[in-house]
Amino acid sequence: MDFDLDQSIEVLSRSPGTLRALLGGLGDPWIRGTEGPKTFSPFDVVGHLIDGEETDWIPRARIILARGPEPRFEPYDRPRHWKRNRERSLESLPDEFTRLRLANVETLRTGKLQNADLDLLGAHPIFGRVTLRQLLAAWVVHDLGHITQVARVMAKQYREAVGPWVPFLAVLTDRERKE
Amino acid sequence: MDFDLDQSIEVLSRSPGTLRALLGGLGDPWIRGTEGPKTFSPFDVVGHLIDGEETDWIPRARIILARGPEPRFEPYDRPRHWKRNRERSLESLPDEFTRLRLANVETLRTGKLQNADLDLLGAHPIFGRVTLRQLLAAWVVHDLGHITQVARVMAKQYREAVGPWVPFLAVLTDRERKE
Repeated sequence: MDFDLDQSIEVLSRSPGTLRALLGGLGDPWIRGTEGPKTFSPFDVVGHLIDGEETDWIPRARIILARGPEPRFEPYDRPRHWKRNRERSLESLPDEFTRLRLANVETLRTGKLQNADLDLLGAHPIFGRVTLRQLLAAWVVHDLGHITQVARVMAKQYREAVGPWVPFLAVLTDRERKE
Repeated sequence: MDFDLDQSIEVLSRSPGTLRALLGGLGDPWIRGTEGPKTFSPFDVVGHLIDGEETDWIPRARIILARGPEPRFEPYDRPRHWKRNRERSLESLPDEFTRLRLANVETLRTGKLQNADLDLLGAHPIFGRVTLRQLLAAWVVHDLGHITQVARVMAKQYREAVGPWVPFLAVLTDRERKE
Protein backbone atom coordinates (compact mmCIF):
# COMPACT_ATOMS: atom_id res chain seq x y z
CA MET A 1 0.00 0.00 0.00
CA ASP A 2 1.47 3.36 -1.04
CA PHE A 3 1.45 6.25 1.39
CA ASP A 4 -1.69 8.33 1.13
CA LEU A 5 -2.25 11.40 3.27
CA ASP A 6 -6.03 11.02 3.62
CA GLN A 7 -5.75 7.33 4.45
CA SER A 8 -3.10 8.14 7.03
CA ILE A 9 -5.33 10.75 8.63
CA GLU A 10 -8.12 8.13 8.75
CA VAL A 11 -5.98 6.01 11.07
CA LEU A 12 -4.37 8.81 13.07
CA SER A 13 -7.74 10.33 13.88
CA ARG A 14 -9.12 6.98 15.09
CA SER A 15 -6.41 6.09 17.62
CA PRO A 16 -7.74 8.19 20.52
CA GLY A 17 -11.22 6.71 20.16
CA THR A 18 -9.79 3.20 19.91
CA LEU A 19 -7.79 3.61 23.12
CA ARG A 20 -10.73 5.21 24.92
CA ALA A 21 -13.02 2.37 23.85
CA LEU A 22 -10.48 -0.23 24.98
CA LEU A 23 -9.34 1.42 28.24
CA GLY A 24 -12.01 3.90 29.35
CA GLY A 25 -13.38 3.00 32.77
CA LEU A 26 -11.28 -0.18 33.10
CA GLY A 27 -9.96 -1.10 36.51
CA ASP A 28 -6.36 -0.79 37.69
CA PRO A 29 -5.34 -4.43 37.14
CA TRP A 30 -5.82 -4.01 33.38
CA ILE A 31 -4.50 -0.44 33.14
CA ARG A 32 -1.43 -0.82 35.34
CA GLY A 33 -0.37 -4.37 34.41
CA THR A 34 2.94 -4.76 32.54
CA GLU A 35 4.98 -7.48 30.82
CA GLY A 36 7.62 -7.35 33.56
CA PRO A 37 10.10 -4.86 35.03
CA LYS A 38 10.78 -1.78 32.92
CA THR A 39 8.03 -2.62 30.42
CA PHE A 40 5.04 -0.42 29.63
CA SER A 41 1.59 -0.74 31.12
CA PRO A 42 -1.38 0.48 29.02
CA PHE A 43 -1.19 3.67 31.12
CA ASP A 44 2.48 4.11 30.13
CA VAL A 45 1.69 3.54 26.46
CA VAL A 46 -0.82 6.38 26.46
CA GLY A 47 1.78 8.56 28.22
CA HIS A 48 4.32 7.65 25.55
CA LEU A 49 1.83 8.54 22.81
CA ILE A 50 1.28 11.94 24.47
CA ASP A 51 5.06 12.51 24.34
CA GLY A 52 4.86 11.76 20.63
CA GLU A 53 2.20 14.43 20.12
CA GLU A 54 4.14 17.03 22.09
CA THR A 55 7.71 16.36 20.97
CA ASP A 56 7.93 13.97 18.05
CA TRP A 57 5.74 13.71 14.99
CA ILE A 58 4.34 17.16 14.25
CA PRO A 59 7.39 18.97 15.70
CA ARG A 60 9.58 16.94 13.32
CA ALA A 61 7.25 17.62 10.41
CA ARG A 62 7.57 21.34 11.18
CA ILE A 63 11.37 21.07 11.09
CA ILE A 64 11.16 19.52 7.63
CA LEU A 65 8.61 22.03 6.37
CA ALA A 66 10.71 24.96 7.63
CA ARG A 67 13.12 24.06 4.78
CA GLY A 68 16.14 25.17 6.82
CA PRO A 69 19.72 24.31 5.84
CA GLU A 70 19.95 21.61 8.54
CA PRO A 71 16.56 19.95 9.15
CA ARG A 72 17.82 17.86 12.06
CA PHE A 73 15.29 16.32 14.46
CA GLU A 74 15.72 16.63 18.22
CA PRO A 75 16.60 13.23 19.71
CA TYR A 76 13.54 11.63 21.23
CA ASP A 77 13.37 11.71 25.03
CA ARG A 78 12.05 8.21 25.73
CA PRO A 79 11.68 8.35 29.53
CA ARG A 80 9.99 11.80 29.43
CA HIS A 81 6.50 10.44 30.22
CA TRP A 82 7.54 8.59 33.41
CA LYS A 83 8.21 11.90 35.10
CA ARG A 84 5.52 13.91 33.34
CA ASN A 85 2.65 11.60 34.27
CA ARG A 86 3.68 10.34 37.70
CA GLU A 87 0.74 12.03 39.43
CA ARG A 88 -1.82 11.69 36.65
CA SER A 89 -5.02 9.71 37.01
CA LEU A 90 -5.98 6.75 34.89
CA GLU A 91 -8.75 8.70 33.28
CA SER A 92 -6.94 11.93 32.46
CA LEU A 93 -4.35 10.57 30.03
CA PRO A 94 -6.65 9.27 27.27
CA ASP A 95 -8.50 12.60 27.33
CA GLU A 96 -5.24 14.49 27.07
CA PHE A 97 -4.02 12.29 24.23
CA THR A 98 -7.31 12.85 22.41
CA ARG A 99 -7.06 16.63 22.69
CA LEU A 100 -3.43 16.75 21.52
CA ARG A 101 -3.98 14.28 18.68
CA LEU A 102 -7.07 16.02 17.30
CA ALA A 103 -5.16 19.32 17.22
CA ASN A 104 -2.25 17.65 15.43
CA VAL A 105 -4.50 15.93 12.92
CA GLU A 106 -6.14 19.29 12.27
CA THR A 107 -2.68 20.77 11.58
CA LEU A 108 -2.08 17.98 9.10
CA ARG A 109 -5.49 18.30 7.50
CA THR A 110 -5.25 22.05 6.99
CA GLY A 111 -1.59 21.95 5.91
CA LYS A 112 -2.48 21.43 2.24
CA LEU A 113 0.58 19.24 1.79
CA GLN A 114 1.50 18.56 -1.81
CA ASN A 115 3.63 15.73 -3.16
CA ALA A 116 6.60 18.10 -3.32
CA ASP A 117 6.21 18.80 0.40
CA LEU A 118 6.01 15.11 1.19
CA ASP A 119 9.32 14.60 -0.65
CA LEU A 120 11.14 17.11 1.58
CA LEU A 121 13.90 15.69 3.75
CA GLY A 122 14.66 15.73 7.44
CA ALA A 123 17.65 14.31 9.31
CA HIS A 124 16.86 11.62 11.86
CA PRO A 125 19.41 11.45 14.72
CA ILE A 126 19.90 7.70 14.26
CA PHE A 127 19.29 6.79 10.64
CA GLY A 128 19.71 10.05 8.76
CA ARG A 129 17.74 11.22 5.75
CA VAL A 130 14.01 10.60 5.76
CA THR A 131 11.19 12.17 3.79
CA LEU A 132 8.18 13.84 5.33
CA ARG A 133 6.15 11.06 3.69
CA GLN A 134 8.13 8.40 5.59
CA LEU A 135 7.79 10.35 8.84
CA LEU A 136 4.01 10.48 8.50
CA ALA A 137 3.80 6.79 7.56
CA ALA A 138 5.92 5.94 10.62
CA TRP A 139 3.52 7.94 12.79
CA VAL A 140 0.62 5.76 11.59
CA VAL A 141 2.54 2.53 12.16
CA HIS A 142 3.76 3.73 15.55
CA ASP A 143 0.13 4.23 16.66
CA LEU A 144 -0.90 0.79 15.46
CA GLY A 145 2.13 -0.83 17.08
CA HIS A 146 1.20 0.66 20.42
CA ILE A 147 -2.42 -0.42 20.08
CA THR A 148 -1.12 -3.99 19.59
CA GLN A 149 1.04 -3.50 22.67
CA VAL A 150 -1.85 -2.35 24.89
CA ALA A 151 -4.01 -5.32 23.93
CA ARG A 152 -1.08 -7.74 24.30
CA VAL A 153 -0.11 -6.43 27.75
CA MET A 154 -3.72 -6.78 28.87
CA ALA A 155 -3.93 -10.32 27.46
CA LYS A 156 -0.84 -11.38 29.40
CA GLN A 157 -2.45 -10.49 32.72
CA TYR A 158 -4.57 -13.63 32.16
CA ARG A 159 -1.69 -15.90 31.18
CA GLU A 160 -2.16 -18.14 34.24
CA ALA A 161 -5.94 -17.90 34.20
CA VAL A 162 -6.36 -19.59 30.79
CA GLY A 163 -4.69 -22.83 31.95
CA PRO A 164 -4.24 -25.30 29.06
CA TRP A 165 -5.16 -22.67 26.45
CA VAL A 166 -1.72 -20.98 26.62
CA PRO A 167 -0.14 -22.68 23.57
CA PHE A 168 -3.28 -21.96 21.52
CA LEU A 169 -3.33 -18.23 22.24
CA ALA A 170 -0.38 -16.85 20.31
CA VAL A 171 -0.59 -13.43 21.94
CA LEU A 172 0.52 -15.05 25.22
CA THR A 173 3.55 -16.75 23.74
CA ASP A 174 5.11 -13.90 21.78
CA ARG A 175 4.22 -15.60 18.54
CA GLU A 176 1.83 -14.29 15.90
CA ARG A 177 -1.16 -16.15 14.62
CA LYS A 178 -1.93 -14.86 11.17
CA GLU A 179 -5.01 -16.88 10.36
CA MET B 1 -3.87 -11.53 37.84
CA ASP B 2 -6.46 -14.06 39.01
CA PHE B 3 -9.59 -14.63 36.97
CA ASP B 4 -12.41 -12.32 37.96
CA LEU B 5 -15.81 -12.47 36.31
CA ASP B 6 -16.57 -8.74 36.52
CA GLN B 7 -13.12 -7.79 35.24
CA SER B 8 -13.55 -10.25 32.37
CA ILE B 9 -16.90 -8.74 31.46
CA GLU B 10 -15.23 -5.29 31.47
CA VAL B 11 -12.99 -6.40 28.62
CA LEU B 12 -15.50 -8.55 26.73
CA SER B 13 -18.01 -5.72 26.65
CA ARG B 14 -15.42 -3.26 25.29
CA SER B 15 -14.20 -5.25 22.28
CA PRO B 16 -17.03 -4.30 19.88
CA GLY B 17 -16.54 -0.60 20.63
CA THR B 18 -12.79 -0.92 20.23
CA LEU B 19 -13.12 -2.56 16.82
CA ARG B 20 -15.74 -0.06 15.69
CA ALA B 21 -13.53 2.85 16.78
CA LEU B 22 -10.54 1.36 14.96
CA LEU B 23 -12.28 0.15 11.80
CA GLY B 24 -15.56 2.06 11.41
CA GLY B 25 -15.64 4.00 8.16
CA LEU B 26 -12.09 3.03 7.14
CA GLY B 27 -11.38 2.45 3.47
CA ASP B 28 -10.85 -0.90 1.78
CA PRO B 29 -7.03 -0.83 1.76
CA TRP B 30 -6.96 -0.94 5.56
CA ILE B 31 -9.93 -3.28 6.00
CA ARG B 32 -9.04 -5.82 3.33
CA GLY B 33 -5.25 -5.86 3.65
CA THR B 34 -3.64 -9.08 4.92
CA GLU B 35 -0.21 -10.39 5.96
CA GLY B 36 -0.02 -12.64 2.90
CA PRO B 37 -1.91 -15.56 1.35
CA LYS B 38 -4.30 -17.38 3.69
CA THR B 39 -3.88 -14.80 6.47
CA PHE B 40 -6.69 -12.74 7.96
CA SER B 41 -7.60 -9.20 6.99
CA PRO B 42 -9.26 -7.01 9.65
CA PHE B 43 -12.56 -7.91 7.94
CA ASP B 44 -11.79 -11.62 8.37
CA VAL B 45 -10.90 -11.12 12.04
CA VAL B 46 -14.29 -9.61 12.75
CA GLY B 47 -15.88 -12.52 10.87
CA HIS B 48 -13.90 -14.96 12.99
CA LEU B 49 -15.01 -13.19 16.17
CA ILE B 50 -18.63 -13.51 15.02
CA ASP B 51 -18.09 -17.26 14.63
CA GLY B 52 -16.86 -17.28 18.21
CA GLU B 53 -20.06 -15.64 19.43
CA GLU B 54 -22.28 -18.02 17.48
CA THR B 55 -20.47 -21.32 17.94
CA ASP B 56 -17.68 -21.17 20.49
CA TRP B 57 -17.55 -19.37 23.83
CA ILE B 58 -21.10 -19.17 25.16
CA PRO B 59 -22.18 -22.42 23.47
CA ARG B 60 -19.27 -24.17 25.23
CA ALA B 61 -20.11 -22.48 28.53
CA ARG B 62 -23.65 -23.85 28.15
CA ILE B 63 -22.30 -27.37 27.58
CA ILE B 64 -20.36 -27.11 30.84
CA LEU B 65 -23.26 -25.61 32.77
CA ALA B 66 -25.63 -28.32 31.54
CA ARG B 67 -23.64 -30.68 33.85
CA GLY B 68 -24.16 -33.61 31.51
CA PRO B 69 -22.18 -36.85 31.78
CA GLU B 70 -19.99 -35.95 28.78
CA PRO B 71 -19.48 -32.16 28.55
CA ARG B 72 -17.59 -32.41 25.25
CA PHE B 73 -17.24 -29.26 23.12
CA GLU B 74 -18.00 -29.32 19.41
CA PRO B 75 -14.76 -28.95 17.40
CA TYR B 76 -14.35 -25.38 16.23
CA ASP B 77 -15.08 -24.81 12.53
CA ARG B 78 -12.23 -22.42 11.68
CA PRO B 79 -13.08 -21.67 8.03
CA ARG B 80 -16.80 -21.10 8.79
CA HIS B 81 -16.63 -17.33 8.39
CA TRP B 82 -15.10 -17.38 4.88
CA LYS B 83 -18.30 -18.82 3.52
CA ARG B 84 -20.68 -17.08 5.90
CA ASN B 85 -19.45 -13.55 5.17
CA ARG B 86 -18.52 -13.75 1.50
CA GLU B 87 -21.21 -11.30 0.45
CA ARG B 88 -21.18 -9.09 3.54
CA SER B 89 -20.30 -5.42 3.45
CA LEU B 90 -17.41 -3.85 5.34
CA GLU B 91 -19.80 -2.01 7.58
CA SER B 92 -22.21 -4.80 8.48
CA LEU B 93 -19.81 -7.11 10.30
CA PRO B 94 -18.80 -4.88 13.22
CA ASP B 95 -22.48 -4.12 13.83
CA GLU B 96 -23.30 -7.80 13.79
CA PHE B 97 -20.44 -8.63 16.13
CA THR B 98 -21.62 -5.90 18.50
CA ARG B 99 -25.15 -7.24 18.62
CA LEU B 100 -24.06 -10.84 19.22
CA ARG B 101 -21.45 -9.90 21.80
CA LEU B 102 -23.74 -7.69 23.82
CA ALA B 103 -26.32 -10.48 24.00
CA ASN B 104 -23.63 -12.95 25.09
CA VAL B 105 -22.25 -10.58 27.72
CA GLU B 106 -25.78 -10.13 29.00
CA THR B 107 -26.09 -13.92 29.30
CA LEU B 108 -22.89 -13.94 31.33
CA ARG B 109 -23.92 -10.99 33.47
CA THR B 110 -27.31 -12.40 34.36
CA GLY B 111 -26.04 -15.98 34.82
CA LYS B 112 -25.19 -15.41 38.50
CA LEU B 113 -22.20 -17.71 38.20
CA GLN B 114 -20.71 -18.78 41.52
CA ASN B 115 -17.21 -20.10 42.16
CA ALA B 116 -18.58 -23.64 42.14
CA ASP B 117 -19.96 -23.05 38.62
CA LEU B 118 -16.63 -21.65 37.46
CA ASP B 119 -14.92 -24.84 38.69
CA LEU B 120 -17.13 -27.06 36.50
CA LEU B 121 -15.34 -29.00 33.78
CA GLY B 122 -15.75 -29.29 30.05
CA ALA B 123 -13.86 -31.47 27.57
CA HIS B 124 -11.93 -29.61 24.88
CA PRO B 125 -11.51 -31.64 21.66
CA ILE B 126 -7.74 -31.02 21.61
CA PHE B 127 -6.48 -30.59 25.14
CA GLY B 128 -9.14 -32.19 27.29
CA ARG B 129 -10.35 -31.04 30.71
CA VAL B 130 -10.82 -27.32 31.19
CA THR B 131 -12.79 -25.37 33.76
CA LEU B 132 -15.47 -22.84 32.92
CA ARG B 133 -13.16 -20.26 34.53
CA GLN B 134 -10.39 -21.11 32.05
CA LEU B 135 -12.83 -21.01 29.13
CA LEU B 136 -13.98 -17.51 30.07
CA ALA B 137 -10.40 -16.29 30.61
CA ALA B 138 -9.47 -17.69 27.18
CA TRP B 139 -12.39 -15.77 25.65
CA VAL B 140 -10.95 -12.52 27.04
CA VAL B 141 -7.44 -13.29 25.82
CA HIS B 142 -8.77 -14.40 22.43
CA ASP B 143 -10.44 -11.00 21.98
CA LEU B 144 -7.28 -9.12 22.91
CA GLY B 145 -5.14 -11.29 20.66
CA HIS B 146 -7.36 -10.49 17.70
CA ILE B 147 -7.29 -6.77 18.48
CA THR B 148 -3.49 -6.97 18.35
CA GLN B 149 -3.83 -8.82 15.04
CA VAL B 150 -6.07 -6.18 13.46
CA ALA B 151 -3.71 -3.34 14.39
CA ARG B 152 -0.66 -5.34 13.28
CA VAL B 153 -2.17 -6.27 9.91
CA MET B 154 -3.03 -2.60 9.33
CA ALA B 155 0.48 -1.51 10.32
CA LYS B 156 2.06 -3.90 7.82
CA GLN B 157 0.23 -2.26 4.93
CA TYR B 158 2.68 0.64 5.44
CA ARG B 159 5.81 -1.49 5.69
CA GLU B 160 7.30 -0.04 2.50
CA ALA B 161 6.01 3.47 3.16
CA VAL B 162 8.02 3.98 6.37
CA GLY B 163 11.38 3.51 4.61
CA PRO B 164 14.30 3.51 7.08
CA TRP B 165 11.97 3.27 10.08
CA VAL B 166 11.32 -0.47 9.57
CA PRO B 167 13.86 -1.79 12.12
CA PHE B 168 12.60 0.71 14.71
CA LEU B 169 8.96 -0.28 14.44
CA ALA B 170 8.78 -3.72 16.04
CA VAL B 171 5.23 -4.36 14.85
CA LEU B 172 6.58 -4.54 11.28
CA THR B 173 9.26 -7.07 12.06
CA ASP B 174 7.33 -9.63 14.07
CA ARG B 175 9.18 -8.64 17.21
CA GLU B 176 7.68 -7.08 20.32
CA ARG B 177 8.81 -3.85 21.84
CA LYS B 178 7.90 -3.90 25.49
CA GLU B 179 9.07 -0.49 26.59
